[in-house]
Amino acid sequence: MKKILLLTGVLLCCLGFAKAQDLKSPNGKLVMKFTLLQDGSPSYSLTYKGKPVIKPSKMGFDLKTKPRDEASGGSDANMEQKNVNLQGSLHSNFTLVSNQTTNYDETWAPVWGEVKTIRNHYNELAVTLNQQQTNRQMVIRFRLFDDGLGFRYEFPTQKNLTYFVIKEERTQFAMAGDHTAYWIAGDYDTQEYDYTTSKLSEIRGIMAKAVTANISQTPFSPTGVQTSLMMKSKDGLYINLHEAALINYPVMHLNLDDKNMVFESWLTPDAVGDKGYMQAPCTTPWRTVLVSDDARDILASKMTYNLNEPNKIKDAASWIKPTKYVGVWWEMITGKSTWSYTNDYPTIQLGITDYTKAKPHGKHGANNANVKRYIDFAAKHGFDGVLVEGWNQGWEDWFGNSKDYVFDFVTPYPDFNVQEIRDYAKSKGVKMIMHHETSSSVRNYERHLDKAYQFMKDNGYDAVKSGYVGDILPRGENHYSQWIVNHYQYALEKAAEYKIMVNAHEAVRPTGIARTYPNLIGNESARGTEYQSFGGSKPNHVTVLPFTRLIGGPMDYTPGIFEMDLSKLNPDNGSHVNSTLANQLALYLTLYSPLQMAADLPENYERFMDAFQFIKDVAVDWDDSKYLEAEPGEYVTVARKAKGTGQWFLGSVGGDNARTSNIKLDFLDKGKTYIATIYADAKDAHYKTNSQAYTIKKVVVTNKSKLSQFVAPGGGYAISFELATKDKTKGLPKL
Amino acid sequence: MKKILLLTGVLLCCLGFAKAQDLKSPNGKLVMKFTLLQDGSPSYSLTYKGKPVIKPSKMGFDLKTKPRDEASGGSDANMEQKNVNLQGSLHSNFTLVSNQTTNYDETWAPVWGEVKTIRNHYNELAVTLNQQQTNRQMVIRFRLFDDGLGFRYEFPTQKNLTYFVIKEERTQFAMAGDHTAYWIAGDYDTQEYDYTTSKLSEIRGIMAKAVTANISQTPFSPTGVQTSLMMKSKDGLYINLHEAALINYPVMHLNLDDKNMVFESWLTPDAVGDKGYMQAPCTTPWRTVLVSDDARDILASKMTYNLNEPNKIKDAASWIKPTKYVGVWWEMITGKSTWSYTNDYPTIQLGITDYTKAKPHGKHGANNANVKRYIDFAAKHGFDGVLVEGWNQGWEDWFGNSKDYVFDFVTPYPDFNVQEIRDYAKSKGVKMIMHHETSSSVRNYERHLDKAYQFMKDNGYDAVKSGYVGDILPRGENHYSQWIVNHYQYALEKAAEYKIMVNAHEAVRPTGIARTYPNLIGNESARGTEYQSFGGSKPNHVTVLPFTRLIGGPMDYTPGIFEMDLSKLNPDNGSHVNSTLANQLALYLTLYSPLQMAADLPENYERFMDAFQFIKDVAVDWDDSKYLEAEPGEYVTVARKAKGTGQWFLGSVGGDNARTSNIKLDFLDKGKTYIATIYADAKDAHYKTNSQAYTIKKVVVTNKSKLSQFVAPGGGYAISFELATKDKTKGLPKL
Repeated sequence: MKKILLLTGVLLCCLGFAKAQDLKSPNGKLVMKFTLLQDGSPSYSLTYKGKPVIKPSKMGFDLKTKPRDEASGGSDANMEQKNVNLQGSLHSNFTLVSNQTTNYDETWAPVWGEVKTIRNHYNELAVTLNQQQTNRQMVIRFRLFDDGLGFRYEFPTQKNLTYFVIKEERTQFAMAGDHTAYWIAGDYDTQEYDYTTSKLSEIRGIMAKAVTANISQTPFSPTGVQTSLMMKSKDGLYINLHEAALINYPVMHLNLDDKNMVFESWLTPDAVGDKGYMQAPCTTPWRTVLVSDDARDILASKMTYNLNEPNKIKDAASWIKPTKYVGVWWEMITGKSTWSYTNDYPTIQLGITDYTKAKPHGKHGANNANVKRYIDFAAKHGFDGVLVEGWNQGWEDWFGNSKDYVFDFVTPYPDFNVQEIRDYAKSKGVKMIMHHETSSSVRNYERHLDKAYQFMKDNGYDAVKSGYVGDILPRGENHYSQWIVNHYQYALEKAAEYKIMVNAHEAVRPTGIARTYPNLIGNESARGTEYQSFGGSKPNHVTVLPFTRLIGGPMDYTPGIFEMDLSKLNPDNGSHVNSTLANQLALYLTLYSPLQMAADLPENYERFMDAFQFIKDVAVDWDDSKYLEAEPGEYVTVARKAKGTGQWFLGSVGGDNARTSNIKLDFLDKGKTYIATIYADAKDAHYKTNSQAYTIKKVVVTNKSKLSQFVAPGGGYAISFELATKDKTKGLPKL
Repeated sequence: MKKILLLTGVLLCCLGFAKAQDLKSPNGKLVMKFTLLQDGSPSYSLTYKGKPVIKPSKMGFDLKTKPRDEASGGSDANMEQKNVNLQGSLHSNFTLVSNQTTNYDETWAPVWGEVKTIRNHYNELAVTLNQQQTNRQMVIRFRLFDDGLGFRYEFPTQKNLTYFVIKEERTQFAMAGDHTAYWIAGDYDTQEYDYTTSKLSEIRGIMAKAVTANISQTPFSPTGVQTSLMMKSKDGLYINLHEAALINYPVMHLNLDDKNMVFESWLTPDAVGDKGYMQAPCTTPWRTVLVSDDARDILASKMTYNLNEPNKIKDAASWIKPTKYVGVWWEMITGKSTWSYTNDYPTIQLGITDYTKAKPHGKHGANNANVKRYIDFAAKHGFDGVLVEGWNQGWEDWFGNSKDYVFDFVTPYPDFNVQEIRDYAKSKGVKMIMHHETSSSVRNYERHLDKAYQFMKDNGYDAVKSGYVGDILPRGENHYSQWIVNHYQYALEKAAEYKIMVNAHEAVRPTGIARTYPNLIGNESARGTEYQSFGGSKPNHVTVLPFTRLIGGPMDYTPGIFEMDLSKLNPDNGSHVNSTLANQLALYLTLYSPLQMAADLPENYERFMDAFQFIKDVAVDWDDSKYLEAEPGEYVTVARKAKGTGQWFLGSVGGDNARTSNIKLDFLDKGKTYIATIYADAKDAHYKTNSQAYTIKKVVVTNKSKLSQFVAPGGGYAISFELATKDKTKGLPKL
């Protein structure tokens, strides 16, 4: 109580007295205070168990005052231009019109997910504000859950605010201290940086090193970082800042005032430097603050989904299926084979370049024989699908040229027979997975989208992996500007019309919209396994991703690499996969996704069939999930109950150093006996020096059992639990 | 001969000695000299009958040296970025590899046009150049016709020039003197300025006044002008600069060095300031110079078409039909009625705004009853089609808001019944003409294009008038940048797939591509009749258009205004149409187009049925055309022979002052007698004070007849010639 008074005190002295309104979370542990300051600026603050999470922080917008369209009159002069508001400040001089508090409690069932049902339980405060001189209304809606806060701005239909252009959003997140942050550099075009762990005050000094080279990148500030941003305070609070329901709005980055430790929203601009083009009635995405003194609550939170609209796809369950797949992909990523078909031409012109006359260079991965090999492998080991990249014409000069007509998405190379592969896969009971690399030529993709989707349906493809490598066309736009966010949404909704599942790479990071459009079964939008082949990622990378990238939705991380020395696949590739084999198995649990790839080559799996058994067994859809251990950058341990079967699986990943994982198996069904198959690091395992050293043992366990398990540097372990019958347990040790 | 030597002399002293190559036109009157200067810069010059037309002028390009894509490496690092050339200069250090001269002579028949057949006759010089240090090849191809010069740059397939970005084209057009020019301000977004007649040296001083307000405009230089640019030299040469076959390249403007009277190409930039994104093999459009000592030759020239590719539409003649039409349009332009339906909503959201619940404001022009009135009028008077604007939802806030989803092109207002109108028009034997206003929201139009075209075919529309009012979306792009030029072409070619004729307004001005895609039956792309309702145009405007805008192709000028006092249509509109009624009739001849509108309201035509008879009679497709009088800014007189019927029509328009037109009727068929119905200005007619004063008389004429005809200020006259039988000529005076 004292602390709250103290905080109020702070509020008084810093911001001057003004009317305030409190909002409590259902369990009372979170308290949000909204205040309208003396100058009419809206402000909010947040506490968790009395501890400050967000100190008083201002809210609002700067609007553009000179629309590009202003040079009007002259032609068509008898038609008057609509009022484009010329008053820039939408962050002060507000008066309180009304307050409305409500509470909400529902339970909904996701089409796919970590759990069978999700409770959406919050108390809401809607503050209606009026800006006096301009007579413009703005509503700020707060939703306070037991695990965090969401708020957004709403602009109702009104006379004086119709069309307006956001110059910048001015939402502050004032931190209560110099927290430890797990961050990547803010960037308009890439999210694929390695994470840095540092104090907030250290970001500026580290930034230059943190911005590593990328094909398309636009960093913007020495203290700019991306969301979802994970932080930990000295007094043990875990705080996560992100956004939910990003629709028709630019991505929000965070820019840090590192004197006062205040983050402010920094939106992604368009080609002319504007941020958001708005038409009332409209709303912004939700700005989210997850908080707990237990890191596991951050991972278990469903708040981001809850802040999204319910499923809009009526018959979703009938055609959206969680999928485990293999693919002709890792061999190109490692350089063992190629996407391209020939070296004959300096450039390619679709429809003009005649590949039938070209001399194949012999390294093309997507050839009929090789694809059938993957189909056979998938069929033999029970995988649902096979992804094939590099099947279509145009890969010889597919990026880096700002090329407009780069792919047509329907014309295969001479050595890839679409119909033959379609029929062969069908005969083997395997689904083909389409690949649409757009090279970020967005207009070209939209021009071909209908034909491309129809081509998929005609040839037995129900899912597409799309890619956005390179700088965006139209030129000047960015991967995360409103215009392009709008495109990803367009491609997703059109895919739904065709009953196509989408797994978009290099697209905007998810913000929970998979609740509304569950055909978005995957995204990359972070540093995936491919970077292990581009010089490698940090061993603890996979212990950060669940706290950051995965907050908004599943990631197509493409785990399951068994051969860590990539020079064995391609002598010219000196990269090493910084992970143990057991760690790779655990990722199928710790990096939740309804879409899981076994990314390595069949021949590598065939060398380790005992370990591969876990990838064959592990489920991809769940009735329940229990986070047992969690610390960002250190470790994540989670147990999940497979959908329908009642079978449990467990995964645990560690960080840079060895550790011992101590867990209770009390999540297991009471009174039942299980045989646990434990895939673990050998004592001498190490992500760099001994990454394939693993052990497999079977033990008998119950929900009373405790496990103490060694985890090597960059290591982990995975367990499958099967219900035991007497005869099966015979001779097996108890845990 | 002396002059040529003199010119060569100039060449020697100014540019240093170098190898030169001459090219003569088939009739020998034009001589083009190509020279590679000592620094390896290509240069050309042109003479007509020994008079300098283009003094030695440099050629080439500045290329961009820092592609936006340069920040490569890192991700996907095993794929190397293609060579983006980093050497900027592509205008010097060339050596001559080879010269090739050829001659060409063909005759082709246009699908529609001013004449039945067109002769394509030229001598060609192709110069292959190699840039030493960079080993880059460039071909400059010259085609010299009897009426002018065309040349373009070609980039063959090569190792060291694959993808490249044009920073600026450096093509010079060095004038031989301070010519009189008929110009409009260079602008990236509008071509709808009124023409100014001035000396080249006066352009800078007049520019500010010449740039009048427009909804979307981007002027760029105090001496920047648009093509087609018409000029007249002191020694009586008529010179026209333009371009032909503008495909996948930015529009060329001309920027004047007004000390030396040298024009240089100034391309239209994209959102990031780049000009052209090229991939070899590729070519630029043709740069054209028309020249003659007789202004009529400029109007009669077919060089621009000849420099375009032959017709690519196989069955064109079967569905592309010259069309005379009326439409629900002028009443909105004048403000008598509106495109919009209601005033109920501050903004419109398609699919959300419910018009069925809206209170109509009662001025909506495109309502069933009014449209049927136009259909009845068209049927009664033998018009082919009826255009209806404002039929579809969204017009309440259709421009000026940078609105993305502005129209869907398929959803009508509640008072416009698509099927009912379709059936009614069909029963009357009238074709409906579709209207697609895009508001320059180009992505939105492309997203809806297939559905919109299919909707047309489903509802009996074979032609579409498209519009591009307002600033372009994607933001930062311009109406005439490569990206958007590319869009107009996309919409045109896709229309051809649906067998749809296109009449694009506010789109790029034509460059003869209607030879290749004859479904482009019209363009606005200049200051049309609508401006007579927006404050008026200059009386002599229509005597300039044939020498400028029409060089590239037909214009949908929408003539035929009979009521010049627009306050009679809308009390709030003080504009006066600066033209006599007879002038309006003549426009159907002087402004050639296969698409001609009778733009005024039925009730205005019904007041002048005797004059309206000419509009009913006049043809829209021709076997032959004879330009009898021509002087830019002063007068144009042309006689045309209707396709098939052998009937002749004649039109003559004057400028600001009264004049007498003296012509021979020797174009008429020898030995035949005609009854000429002459629609002319009354003696006291005047475009401002007495614009409806006209006379109609019938006289008997032969090809021996001479006519001396008064033309009032802003006036003109029109004649229809019908083959006479004895009884018909009885009592009629001979001319």
